[in-house]
Amino acid sequence: MNFAMVLKSLGILLICEAFAMFPSLIVAAIYEDGDAGAFATTILIIVVIGAILGMLIKPKSKSIYARDGFAIVALGWLLISFFGSLPFVFSGAIPSLVDSFFETSSGFTTTGASILTQIEGLPRGILFWRSFTHWVGGMGVLLLTLAILPTVGANTLQIMNAESPGPNPGKLVPKVGQTAKILYSIYGGITVLEVIFLVAAGMPLYDAFIHTFGTVGTGGFSNKNASIGAYNNVVFEVIITVFMLMCGANFALYYSALKGNIKSFFKDQEFKMYIAVVLGSMILITFNINGTIYQSIGESIRQASFQVASIVTTTGYATVDFNQWPTMSKMILLFLMFFGGCAGSTGGSIKQIRILLLLKIMKRELMQIIHPRAVYSVRVNGKNIEESTLSEVLGFFFMFMVISAVAVIIVSLDGKDMVTTLSSVAATMGNIGPGFEMVGATGNYSEFSILSKLVLSLCMIIGRLEIYPILLLMVPSFWKTN
Amino acid sequence: MNFAMVLKSLGILLICEAFAMFPSLIVAAIYEDGDAGAFATTILIIVVIGAILGMLIKPKSKSIYARDGFAIVALGWLLISFFGSLPFVFSGAIPSLVDSFFETSSGFTTTGASILTQIEGLPRGILFWRSFTHWVGGMGVLLLTLAILPTVGANTLQIMNAESPGPNPGKLVPKVGQTAKILYSIYGGITVLEVIFLVAAGMPLYDAFIHTFGTVGTGGFSNKNASIGAYNNVVFEVIITVFMLMCGANFALYYSALKGNIKSFFKDQEFKMYIAVVLGSMILITFNINGTIYQSIGESIRQASFQVASIVTTTGYATVDFNQWPTMSKMILLFLMFFGGCAGSTGGSIKQIRILLLLKIMKRELMQIIHPRAVYSVRVNGKNIEESTLSEVLGFFFMFMVISAVAVIIVSLDGKDMVTTLSSVAATMGNIGPGFEMVGATGNYSEFSILSKLVLSLCMIIGRLEIYPILLLMVPSFWKTN
Repeated sequence: MNFAMVLKSLGILLICEAFAMFPSLIVAAIYEDGDAGAFATTILIIVVIGAILGMLIKPKSKSIYARDGFAIVALGWLLISFFGSLPFVFSGAIPSLVDSFFETSSGFTTTGASILTQIEGLPRGILFWRSFTHWVGGMGVLLLTLAILPTVGANTLQIMNAESPGPNPGKLVPKVGQTAKILYSIYGGITVLEVIFLVAAGMPLYDAFIHTFGTVGTGGFSNKNASIGAYNNVVFEVIITVFMLMCGANFALYYSALKGNIKSFFKDQEFKMYIAVVLGSMILITFNINGTIYQSIGESIRQASFQVASIVTTTGYATVDFNQWPTMSKMILLFLMFFGGCAGSTGGSIKQIRILLLLKIMKRELMQIIHPRAVYSVRVNGKNIEESTLSEVLGFFFMFMVISAVAVIIVSLDGKDMVTTLSSVAATMGNIGPGFEMVGATGNYSEFSILSKLVLSLCMIIGRLEIYPILLLMVPSFWKTN
Repeated sequence: MNFAMVLKSLGILLICEAFAMFPSLIVAAIYEDGDAGAFATTILIIVVIGAILGMLIKPKSKSIYARDGFAIVALGWLLISFFGSLPFVFSGAIPSLVDSFFETSSGFTTTGASILTQIEGLPRGILFWRSFTHWVGGMGVLLLTLAILPTVGANTLQIMNAESPGPNPGKLVPKVGQTAKILYSIYGGITVLEVIFLVAAGMPLYDAFIHTFGTVGTGGFSNKNASIGAYNNVVFEVIITVFMLMCGANFALYYSALKGNIKSFFKDQEFKMYIAVVLGSMILITFNINGTIYQSIGESIRQASFQVASIVTTTGYATVDFNQWPTMSKMILLFLMFFGGCAGSTGGSIKQIRILLLLKIMKRELMQIIHPRAVYSVRVNGKNIEESTLSEVLGFFFMFMVISAVAVIIVSLDGKDMVTTLSSVAATMGNIGPGFEMVGATGNYSEFSILSKLVLSLCMIIGRLEIYPILLLMVPSFWKTN
């Protein structure tokens, strides 16, 4: 482990976080809700600590190996969640540090789970920061750092790989810094587009920013207690549904499309599966809720579409309380929580590509029994997938389940009902936000114990970083110097 | 596919089932509850069909390949469950054929899930048959056939492998028929021992047989509505707990022990893990229920021990309604449902050895990141496990989850609550029996629709046969002749 380089990188990351806090400081200054001081203080603290780590440490070697990359990403996410929670504490919006840490982890990991019981009325700078963490975390905090400061170390690919979602993160162009810039440009473009659409449709500018951050980061924080349902506006819902689904797709496809290769969408097996899963779920739920919960087919399609898009992309916005839906609809939503978005999207959870690979492996196992002497390979988009990738995907699925199970046992100490307990872990590990029963669309996470809140915060970060980085922190030999 | 050989084997299997029905016919004749005719009629039907298939078909080739083995096992289990349900229908004990099929599948697969709301008062021959199916299914219906009739085909190992639990079924001695005889002898010995113990402790002989079949087959059917709780007898509970745990262990260990190698228990990593899981769960649940549900530590240990042994071995006997326990205890029981017994035991579900291998794979993945150039192998009992076995185990875990998810979606159409729906599938796939809420220890499966009952019956058979055989039946190329 190159400790000096790890610490230096963390310092640079903190300075970036200070920069990321400036827009919120400006919003706070404009609205004068009394939260500007909290931001100013936090920025000062972060800059000082960041400068000490980032400027004063002079590493002997600038090389970053895979292990260092994982350490930077894991510690980095824990640090920014901790320091990012200070404005909530200082402003008095969320007095408890544990609650603030939960809320900030939930923001950066684009989970959208909240301990707040009353959102409306909080200082607008604070609510802006709460949602802006979605925007920063959606594409990757470290990726943002790489986009702004491309000279962190010799092998920044290791940092990018450790943070990027999906089994096979790749560079779009040879240089990592350039890749980061391209991804953030596309992301920024989509962000601006959605703000324009929402404002044009009649949403106030401030609300449009809040909900755009929540949508494009697939986060789900709102400045309304009733989430998107507060507006009861079909046009808003359609815009948000489309943008949620857009941001659940692989951003590399947009880069291809921008280069003129629009066909790449229809050639990509993961994208086709994603669309099939979305449409299939919408149809099943529409039939299940039509006539039982909603009386018109139009209303059923409207609610089914929004909720499916919200859950499968792991955003977590709600227009209705789907806790009241029939069991089949709830079960479909529960399983969608484990699917999640595509690799290279801002969506979380296991990812479509992994489920696709797992299903292909399943088919291969069956064919192998029927024809024991034949050799089958797993192919995606016409390319053979390496066996090492396949066993990594298989292992990932099991790890996801094991860590969820351990978290469930700890959270169950609180004695909440089984559905609340199970779905709170599923909704945080998958970075969705709302679950069922007490943590359903109209509920929140305020009732959990301090221990459970910390465990669920960790679940969000473990889920966002796809398990390995945080898990490695707990292995003693990870920390040994070579 | 060697169709002639498959049909012939199925015929022989049916004749074996007719033989297996004789003890129940005798019991029915002794007690004169009016069910003897139902058995006589069924035996006649089975013998005629079995004789036509088994005697008249003369296959050109006697070779049985892996594919044929899977077909024999999958179709065989479906057939014996169907024909085994006829006595219930003919006697009028369970008028519906679907309900009878559910009950019989539940018996043979040693699940112990019941659609009966009132057990006491049914004809004693019928209840004897219901429990005797546990005994036959526990060690393997096909294995019994191989033990009795060793001349079915050229390569009976393929049949044994397709039916045996665990990732690496092995013969104890070079000959399959001999292996089957040894396993059934040990099984028979344990059976006789438990009957003697229970009778000595004061249980009526008839009840002792019923509960011994349920215990050694890890099934769980009782002739009492309140299961073992009806006796409120600590000595019975201790005897049953010990025998449940014995039958959740690998029978190959008993063979080693009989040959004088008693140390093999303490050298076997799976057995050690099994004991650790059992003790760990007992301790956690004891602390969780002590002071909240039960006032004395003795009572808490008593209830925790029985319920943990019952669930982890996938037996499903109950002494109390654990639905009333705190959430943590229920969650531990829920996860134990996915552990199950050891490979080569009569217990069902995923099996201890697979969980052990999955955890070792998980550890290897982490070590591989820390030391990318090192080569790690997964070892159990000092032996390297082949990569093909590891990926098979990983694939098995995912398939288990996928099939459970599909079943959950179908069963959820009934509109039962989420916990009932989820746990009914977990309890049938894992061959446990009771789940939570409506299908809890004091509940039953009578309220489900016909579709759900059929799906859950299929889940039991899929779970008992460890997925592949039944799944293969649905692949078109499985049926092609070579």
